[in-house]
Amino acid sequence: MQVKGIEKYRPLPLQNVDIRDRFWKPKIDINREHTIPFQYKQCLETGRVDALKLKKDGPVPHPFWDSDIAKWIEAGSYSLAKHYDSVLDKLIDDVIDLLDFAQQPDGYLNSYITLVCPERRWKDLRDSHELYCAGHLIEAGVAHFNGTKKKSLLDIVCKYADYIDTIFGPEPDKLKGYCGHEEIELALIKLYRVTDNDKYLKLSQYFIDERGKEPHYFDEEQKHIKGYFDDLFKTFPNLKEYNQSHKPVREQDKVVGHSVRAMYLYCAMADLALELDDLQLKTACEKLWQSLNGRNMYITGGIGSEEKYEGFTDDYDLPNETSYAETCAAIGLVFWNHRMLQLDCNGKYADLMERALYNGVLSGISLDGKKYFYHNPLASLGDVHRKEWFGVSCCPPNISRLLSSLGEYIYSKDHHTINVHLYIEGSGTFNLQNQNIVLHQKSSYPWDEKIDLTVELDQPMDFQLKLRIPGWCKDAKLTVNGEVFDILNHLVKDYVVIDRNWSNHDKISLILPMPVERMYSHPAVRQNVNHVSIQRGPIVYCIEGTDNVRNLHDVILPLNTELCAEYDDQLLGGIVKISGKAKLLNNESWNDTLYKSTAPDEETIELIAVPYFAWDNREQGPMRVWIPER
Amino acid sequence: MQVKGIEKYRPLPLQNVDIRDRFWKPKIDINREHTIPFQYKQCLETGRVDALKLKKDGPVPHPFWDSDIAKWIEAGSYSLAKHYDSVLDKLIDDVIDLLDFAQQPDGYLNSYITLVCPERRWKDLRDSHELYCAGHLIEAGVAHFNGTKKKSLLDIVCKYADYIDTIFGPEPDKLKGYCGHEEIELALIKLYRVTDNDKYLKLSQYFIDERGKEPHYFDEEQKHIKGYFDDLFKTFPNLKEYNQSHKPVREQDKVVGHSVRAMYLYCAMADLALELDDLQLKTACEKLWQSLNGRNMYITGGIGSEEKYEGFTDDYDLPNETSYAETCAAIGLVFWNHRMLQLDCNGKYADLMERALYNGVLSGISLDGKKYFYHNPLASLGDVHRKEWFGVSCCPPNISRLLSSLGEYIYSKDHHTINVHLYIEGSGTFNLQNQNIVLHQKSSYPWDEKIDLTVELDQPMDFQLKLRIPGWCKDAKLTVNGEVFDILNHLVKDYVVIDRNWSNHDKISLILPMPVERMYSHPAVRQNVNHVSIQRGPIVYCIEGTDNVRNLHDVILPLNTELCAEYDDQLLGGIVKISGKAKLLNNESWNDTLYKSTAPDEETIELIAVPYFAWDNREQGPMRVWIPER
Repeated sequence: MQVKGIEKYRPLPLQNVDIRDRFWKPKIDINREHTIPFQYKQCLETGRVDALKLKKDGPVPHPFWDSDIAKWIEAGSYSLAKHYDSVLDKLIDDVIDLLDFAQQPDGYLNSYITLVCPERRWKDLRDSHELYCAGHLIEAGVAHFNGTKKKSLLDIVCKYADYIDTIFGPEPDKLKGYCGHEEIELALIKLYRVTDNDKYLKLSQYFIDERGKEPHYFDEEQKHIKGYFDDLFKTFPNLKEYNQSHKPVREQDKVVGHSVRAMYLYCAMADLALELDDLQLKTACEKLWQSLNGRNMYITGGIGSEEKYEGFTDDYDLPNETSYAETCAAIGLVFWNHRMLQLDCNGKYADLMERALYNGVLSGISLDGKKYFYHNPLASLGDVHRKEWFGVSCCPPNISRLLSSLGEYIYSKDHHTINVHLYIEGSGTFNLQNQNIVLHQKSSYPWDEKIDLTVELDQPMDFQLKLRIPGWCKDAKLTVNGEVFDILNHLVKDYVVIDRNWSNHDKISLILPMPVERMYSHPAVRQNVNHVSIQRGPIVYCIEGTDNVRNLHDVILPLNTELCAEYDDQLLGGIVKISGKAKLLNNESWNDTLYKSTAPDEETIELIAVPYFAWDNREQGPMRVWIPER
Repeated sequence: MQVKGIEKYRPLPLQNVDIRDRFWKPKIDINREHTIPFQYKQCLETGRVDALKLKKDGPVPHPFWDSDIAKWIEAGSYSLAKHYDSVLDKLIDDVIDLLDFAQQPDGYLNSYITLVCPERRWKDLRDSHELYCAGHLIEAGVAHFNGTKKKSLLDIVCKYADYIDTIFGPEPDKLKGYCGHEEIELALIKLYRVTDNDKYLKLSQYFIDERGKEPHYFDEEQKHIKGYFDDLFKTFPNLKEYNQSHKPVREQDKVVGHSVRAMYLYCAMADLALELDDLQLKTACEKLWQSLNGRNMYITGGIGSEEKYEGFTDDYDLPNETSYAETCAAIGLVFWNHRMLQLDCNGKYADLMERALYNGVLSGISLDGKKYFYHNPLASLGDVHRKEWFGVSCCPPNISRLLSSLGEYIYSKDHHTINVHLYIEGSGTFNLQNQNIVLHQKSSYPWDEKIDLTVELDQPMDFQLKLRIPGWCKDAKLTVNGEVFDILNHLVKDYVVIDRNWSNHDKISLILPMPVERMYSHPAVRQNVNHVSIQRGPIVYCIEGTDNVRNLHDVILPLNTELCAEYDDQLLGGIVKISGKAKLLNNESWNDTLYKSTAPDEETIELIAVPYFAWDNREQGPMRVWIPER
């Protein structure tokens, strides 16, 4: 059933997807074997776990701590869904017991407010992250139920959500507020989907529609209380834009403010558009998407260039050295575009999801899975490095939950269609019209151009298989059972539609040629004028000091340099590296003045570029994505 | 008398210099006719004048206010020296009366401390600007005496300085402190020179040598008092570098911290080197100069790239859009290099003085003399504009005092030598060996290459005339009475030395060819790699939106473009403009994505560049000094 303008595709559940490739599987394994246990250890050692015991002489919780616990449970639950591990299962159960203990008789559950300032319950919605933490707990509850079929945490979060529903809403005796950091909105929709209780859907809708109304809730709130971040916010020019409450969400058409908040808001808007057939919300999402993709995004899929408020600045303002590009924001971008794909199977959303996944998200975690970037600059002088953990540690568990649920992002379906969004070796098991269909993928994506797909099913049947032709690919080729399939004549929104009667062992072979491309920025991005970056397939490249020279900023890429790609299994865990001749300005031959009327001497060097996501995994040094071109 | 390594040249006093050119004279006239009266009005209207009445119900002074008054008196006094004006004379006398009133019986004179917080007298040397204000008052007193021969203010400041001398010094009962904002050190040397009382010289030397000693005075001070700027300084990484007290001044070799403070410190160091034949101080100055000129200065002579603390950052870190380059700092650079020239008649100092004067200083004031820049970026998106006045208004009176004393910067002399540092039409009257010599300059500098000099004197006499050959000039030519003079064989530190028996009406003709030059930065300045700027003679050029396009950042200057210079008497009050063909990236033809694998379309435009100092004098818009080159 479709309303005009809204397609409805549901992602294939995690349990139905296997990932067996050489690119993602090792990362998912490291995530399961190292990262998830390590993050528990960090939560334990920093007091985040014990804070749930609510002891006056125990750890003093920070407003965000519950959300870190929640994201860890969520990541762990996804992992359990695919790979049962009794130790992890037990650890999660133990933490759930603590959450049960920390839950108040009325359902309220927040270690910071309960222990540190119970009088502030629901008093500082703008800054306290109270509903944000609730949202993450709800996501954890849903993931735990989906991953383990246990209801222990789901019951807790339902009780909490039921309580929240008694506090907020349109009824005269309820608060008309919403959270300064969006998150609960998308979480309530997840809760609705798993419980089928439309109270949660309505509450989410209420939060979304109340946002930005006048008189402004935060104005009223601030008359009575000093916000947790009042001092921090003194320098922020527009506090309402910061949390996207500057106008009703349906009227918003430029991405503004804190970029993670923005992404989580847009996720909920897309979900509500789908659940409520709300074309207005879909249209708002489309405008915001255009603002993001067309004017406010790094080539890595990183977003939010301003460190001070972790957010968006003016259109086309994309500084490289100071790009904040928080890992969580790129993850939020993946979440949102994944949802947009459910409303509208348009390759542009999958392109963006892929761009962020392979670049701005993946850069956030080291190759060994042990260190993280909170912000992901596009140029570094050599002073930016990954860390094991952060005081505000939203990013590590966020990457972790994305990696452990990556299977959900590959395919989607409705009753007659299978959509393939990402090319990752493995398989997906679909149930269409009561028949199971297994779609097998074989490929060395993103390094190699060839993807082989095989259909496995008991009885021949009609359905359409839609394969994404990535936006970066100019000359894709396709055969079905060895016969050339005319892509151009079957292309719908960048998906090639193969609508036929499928038989067991039908074979599809897709070629996505991956020449090395010089990428250019929109001329309005002043920081990148006369600069070029390198991309091959979905992978954005960078140059690092360790492969080249210390004075990386003195490298100039001549217009006529040929760039060659070569797989190197010894480099950075196995990557395609790119090389070619470049010019290097000579620092040494310049004298001791700053300015001269003769250009610097140049020498020719062999330039080596490596995938951006893999930078800062060797000796520390400078890095650049955009290179001057001449 | 010279100590090895220290030459001693004194600048020609203001009264002995006439400026009659078309470049500076109109600016000096505007300064006298408009700026100085306007600044008095601002001082009056903002309460700065009335604050001196010390009324409890009057204006509440700011710690810097006295210095604004002082700089206004100083500027006015220089102006009176050259151009008597009874109204200004009376206004200054009236303000001096107020200063006399505000002076305490013990000699102390500071409106802020006296009225607002008398208990903090000498308690917060780091932040209160107490000795800084005293320094400016002393400079005013000296200028007033020199300009009017009246002793009214000189007596006041001598009384104040005498009192200060009883407070600070090596004796056991005295404070071992010094000011967080250097200024009094150079002022005391001026006072010494006019009074010949070497108590002032010794006090200056004491302040200079005490600076940066351990145990650190400011550490001790901060144990007892919260500094005025404590909150502001929280984000500053090194508070001692900020005020150049991180080590003894003789050991300093990198310019650090607040750039105005640094310049004023170095001024005093140069003065003391001269007065005390202190080679150690001279050597320290030379190292600091190399750090400034070789690694920490914009091409405009602007210095201090970081807005947060108005100061220097890392070597070679010279961002353009965010360049702070405070006007006062460029002025301080002129002050310091003027002093270095007195120690060592080396063209490199005059080059730097000239660079700052014609570019980074002059940009600080609008062509009509009514509006100011506090900071002078080298690129603007169109949101930076001059203002009439500032809350902290150090820059306007600082430009004013420099303009009204510009005559002092053109010539210097000893008993046998006349040095010409700047080419400005007019004349200088020198007394050498008891004979008056008038040196006449005729030129249209900085627009024209030709400078004619004529010597006027009663009796033929031997002396050496040293004419600076600017560093930017590659092929200077000289004739003396029509005969070619071999410059190269008579060049000493970039001054051509003409040592001869001079007769009345001897004529020297100097040609300083001024081709349009493309200027390049040291390859270590990462912000300017693959960029070029335009310079002609001493003038640094910029491109402005109003002459060109709004998307100035999309202009690329091809390597083979010929740049032509042409005097335009209708443009910006009469300037040489530079034009040539450039490429413009086409914004319109790009679609609604941010990144593409094809380079932007280009069109050819006629590019017009104007002197940097004259920017933002027409309709508001973007500006750039450094242009991508290809």
